[in-house]
Amino acid sequence: MKKLINDPRAVVREMLEGLVDLAPDQALLEGEDVVVRAGLPPYDERREVAVLSGGGSGHEPAHAGYVGAGMLHAAVSGDVFTSPSVDAVLAAIRAVAGPPGLLLIIKNYTGDRLNFGLAAELARAEGIAVETVVVADDVALRDTVEPERRRGIAGTVLVHKVAGAAAAAGLTLQEVAREARTTASLLGTMGVALGPCTVPAAGRPGFTLGDDEVELGLGIHGERGVERTTLRRADELVETILGTILADRGPGHGDRVALLVNGLGATPPMELAIVARRAIAVLRERGLTVTRAWSGNLLTALEMPGMSLTVLPVDEARLQRLDAPTEAPAWPGGGRIGPARKIVRSSSAVPEPMSLPPRRRAMR
Amino acid sequence: MKKLINDPRAVVREMLEGLVDLAPDQALLEGEDVVVRAGLPPYDERREVAVLSGGGSGHEPAHAGYVGAGMLHAAVSGDVFTSPSVDAVLAAIRAVAGPPGLLLIIKNYTGDRLNFGLAAELARAEGIAVETVVVADDVALRDTVEPERRRGIAGTVLVHKVAGAAAAAGLTLQEVAREARTTASLLGTMGVALGPCTVPAAGRPGFTLGDDEVELGLGIHGERGVERTTLRRADELVETILGTILADRGPGHGDRVALLVNGLGATPPMELAIVARRAIAVLRERGLTVTRAWSGNLLTALEMPGMSLTVLPVDEARLQRLDAPTEAPAWPGGGRIGPARKIVRSSSAVPEPMSLPPRRRAMR
Repeated sequence: MKKLINDPRAVVREMLEGLVDLAPDQALLEGEDVVVRAGLPPYDERREVAVLSGGGSGHEPAHAGYVGAGMLHAAVSGDVFTSPSVDAVLAAIRAVAGPPGLLLIIKNYTGDRLNFGLAAELARAEGIAVETVVVADDVALRDTVEPERRRGIAGTVLVHKVAGAAAAAGLTLQEVAREARTTASLLGTMGVALGPCTVPAAGRPGFTLGDDEVELGLGIHGERGVERTTLRRADELVETILGTILADRGPGHGDRVALLVNGLGATPPMELAIVARRAIAVLRERGLTVTRAWSGNLLTALEMPGMSLTVLPVDEARLQRLDAPTEAPAWPGGGRIGPARKIVRSSSAVPEPMSLPPRRRAMR
Repeated sequence: MKKLINDPRAVVREMLEGLVDLAPDQALLEGEDVVVRAGLPPYDERREVAVLSGGGSGHEPAHAGYVGAGMLHAAVSGDVFTSPSVDAVLAAIRAVAGPPGLLLIIKNYTGDRLNFGLAAELARAEGIAVETVVVADDVALRDTVEPERRRGIAGTVLVHKVAGAAAAAGLTLQEVAREARTTASLLGTMGVALGPCTVPAAGRPGFTLGDDEVELGLGIHGERGVERTTLRRADELVETILGTILADRGPGHGDRVALLVNGLGATPPMELAIVARRAIAVLRERGLTVTRAWSGNLLTALEMPGMSLTVLPVDEARLQRLDAPTEAPAWPGGGRIGPARKIVRSSSAVPEPMSLPPRRRAMR
């Protein structure tokens, strides 16, 4: 196992300390692997609806990177690929919830549902208003798995953004929860891995792939995908993935969508850009209007090479949430894209020189 | 070779198309692998001093990701790890230079110096005022290589930022060049690789490393480093690298510095955060004040696993340049860090509940 770490058992705490060192608006919750906004207003009506997410570690910058004004109020980190404890979630809820209540954003895994759900119950028993939204955006296993058993993957980041912006706009808990649930219900995501990743405490890759094999539709912990197949051109992989998402989620001609091109951890920006190029083109060929697009490592699987694509249909209200300002360090910002690629001619920008010196031609 | 690409010979063009598709304020220069700011003012005094950079591809988001208001005006891309042609650089100069002239930021490689230098000469012969700055920030081979033969690596991004902000502030070409040269002269960078990378057209890794070997101080194209050694704890690697930078560049007790924690392409955010944690601590232990810090994939070597650290001494003027707004899509923004890690107690934020329901204790 080759990693830039110290002790495999300490990776989560050391990582959170590093993230908080880099983020002046974040703080660690004493004694818990929980990152919270620093400088929250006191526990009174000045607090907005709190938005909390989390899960196993290994998906950085999710979830701590999304803690900041306009997005999450806290992120709870379990061990790598392991659900956080009920206690940790409850501590996070207590730290950031105010009178307006709190929304828990949960990725659809048994452990997360159980522990976040139990913490929500305990918090309610303490008098804290808590709503939950479960994100199950992975369409890979659409033919074999019930919709309610789908996994929550990279599209979760967009639910964070919509919910956080709704909370910052002063909406009530019910309204914030409604927007988050609508967003979650519309999202479709699917990924492809070119290789495995290694959980630090295990020290060995979670699975093996042949030199020319890829795993299509796998989960963010290396769980089995829809097909183990041969490496194909990036464009073909993009077409397969988007074809599956669109067939399942159904945005069609004339709809406006946002696109997320997510690196799984070890995919360089060059490859993500090549993927983004084709993804935008495919959506346009299908008659969709791509109004927003982001590319980067937004929700990873440790150092897995590969990517996922997420498509979210948008209306004006949802665009407003996606565009709203946030101080969360990992939100990529921007996202607005033009209707077509811009190409300029040099001569349209600068007048040609009146005469070229003779040595220029000689030198070429 | 497992990569998300289509044709190894087309990676640069397809990547640039993808990047420009994602960036509404960028455009491609027709017929050249050059990304320019879209919507530059006409060729007259409304143009500020132009700042141009570039080099071989494979270092994404450098250099195209730094094209935008407040940073670069254009970026020229050669083939992977290959200097761009004189013609391409000259076309880029012509496209973005105005009457106030243009600064070329060149990483210290023979091919780049030659081709950018020749293009600068040709542009001058056409009447365009051109200044150049050469970045040679790699301190790894300080004991064996003359300072003027040092390589230009990740610190180059900070030269882009300072020069771009100086140009946007309306400074003259001489003033912008002076700030860029001062910044370049103060920078120190050194990296470590945990593995090689594969140039698409070659199809094979550029070198091999044993299962427990790392290459300390290597270059961003996989060039030999100062030492091939055994894998160590991340903290030890950070201490070695920062020790070398500080011994060479000399910032000492009481100085203020900015820190760049740069991923080389395949290093996940978790590992970069663990590295950042120790890097900030080491600098503080040396009596330095870390006023700014950024972490991410800022100048990569394709999908190389590893990282580099850059230290830049800063004064108020340089901080102003680093903090100035920019629309360049890859500039990480922010960077301000606090004097110490923030830790909050849950009870300081939320009043403890008056009484806990009995079932809470039962459930734990």
